[in-house]
Amino acid sequence: MSDDSDRHAAKMAKKKAARDKIMATKTDEKGLIIVHTGKGKGKSSAGFGMIFRCIAHDMRCAVVQFIKGGMSTGERDLIMSRFSDICAFHTMGEGFTWETQDRDRDIEMAQAAWNKAKELIRDEANKMVLLDEINIALRYDYIDINEVVQFLAEEKPHMTHVVLTGRNAKDELIEIADLVTEMELVKHPFRSGIKAQIGVEY
Amino acid sequence: MSDDSDRHAAKMAKKKAARDKIMATKTDEKGLIIVHTGKGKGKSSAGFGMIFRCIAHDMRCAVVQFIKGGMSTGERDLIMSRFSDICAFHTMGEGFTWETQDRDRDIEMAQAAWNKAKELIRDEANKMVLLDEINIALRYDYIDINEVVQFLAEEKPHMTHVVLTGRNAKDELIEIADLVTEMELVKHPFRSGIKAQIGVEY
Repeated sequence: MSDDSDRHAAKMAKKKAARDKIMATKTDEKGLIIVHTGKGKGKSSAGFGMIFRCIAHDMRCAVVQFIKGGMSTGERDLIMSRFSDICAFHTMGEGFTWETQDRDRDIEMAQAAWNKAKELIRDEANKMVLLDEINIALRYDYIDINEVVQFLAEEKPHMTHVVLTGRNAKDELIEIADLVTEMELVKHPFRSGIKAQIGVEY
Repeated sequence: MSDDSDRHAAKMAKKKAARDKIMATKTDEKGLIIVHTGKGKGKSSAGFGMIFRCIAHDMRCAVVQFIKGGMSTGERDLIMSRFSDICAFHTMGEGFTWETQDRDRDIEMAQAAWNKAKELIRDEANKMVLLDEINIALRYDYIDINEVVQFLAEEKPHMTHVVLTGRNAKDELIEIADLVTEMELVKHPFRSGIKAQIGVEY
């Protein structure tokens, strides 16, 4: 190895030692409350990525979609056709509120989705439950944030992971969450006239 | 409906009209250069979520992992065991640099991964190619950023989506990207002594 490489090896060995020392202090396991929020892309995709990770590990899991867009959802079809034995999938709601224009019906749908979510989380067989776009329903007060926070704090089984997605996550939720990621929009192709495309947006 | 609901319906109808009008101007289709960066979680998960989306739509796709951590990757096993007919999967490299401590070998691995990536992107059968953690290899200059930028600009087929993940994305890459999301860390459970857990971290 060159001198350069020797210096690099020494530096990296030091980094590794520091990292190993830190990681050794991380010994607890518990079910996490995970929030993906922000205006950027990837909130739902990252949630579905974690669900596929669970499926890959043969961990039973479940998805509740609180908002169903007008577009077909590929993930839903894939899970329902190939993995329905390990991942329950429920789509509630009729689309974004500006698609339906009926607040009473939206509230009813959101409440039904939340009741389904509670049932799935209470069932300890489910190791992860994804509540996709629940933040939208919470933002419009279709579901009471205090009820959600109280339920997660008091009734979520200790080892169950719950993933909540959607922009504008409420402060009360962020407060009790273990892992919060803000997806920030840096650049978006809609701005240059590119339409939503299969595989990317849906 | 109540007065409140009437007002809501009118407001939402207005929102929908405005949104429909904007969306109607988005008519172009093209393969996007998509970057997931930042210190937060979900960069790779969101990339894998998009790959599963493609798989769900029967779109041929491919993954090159530039950095392989010490931990087993569930997604890899799932794709290779269930979807190898539609999604090629290549893991190059031996782990993070502070795991291997051999810069010469790391460079060799990164170059091999980049050569595989070019081959997969040039093949128009692939509608999406995920270059997972390539930003790490670019950051350490194991791969030349100028070569990557030039290749994407000149040789990427018009309709192919390329997704590049990893923290510290270089400015040159962000410059040519169509869609950039910065995953920002708001809260992380390691800080409270929770270790990496199956289904969440790997």
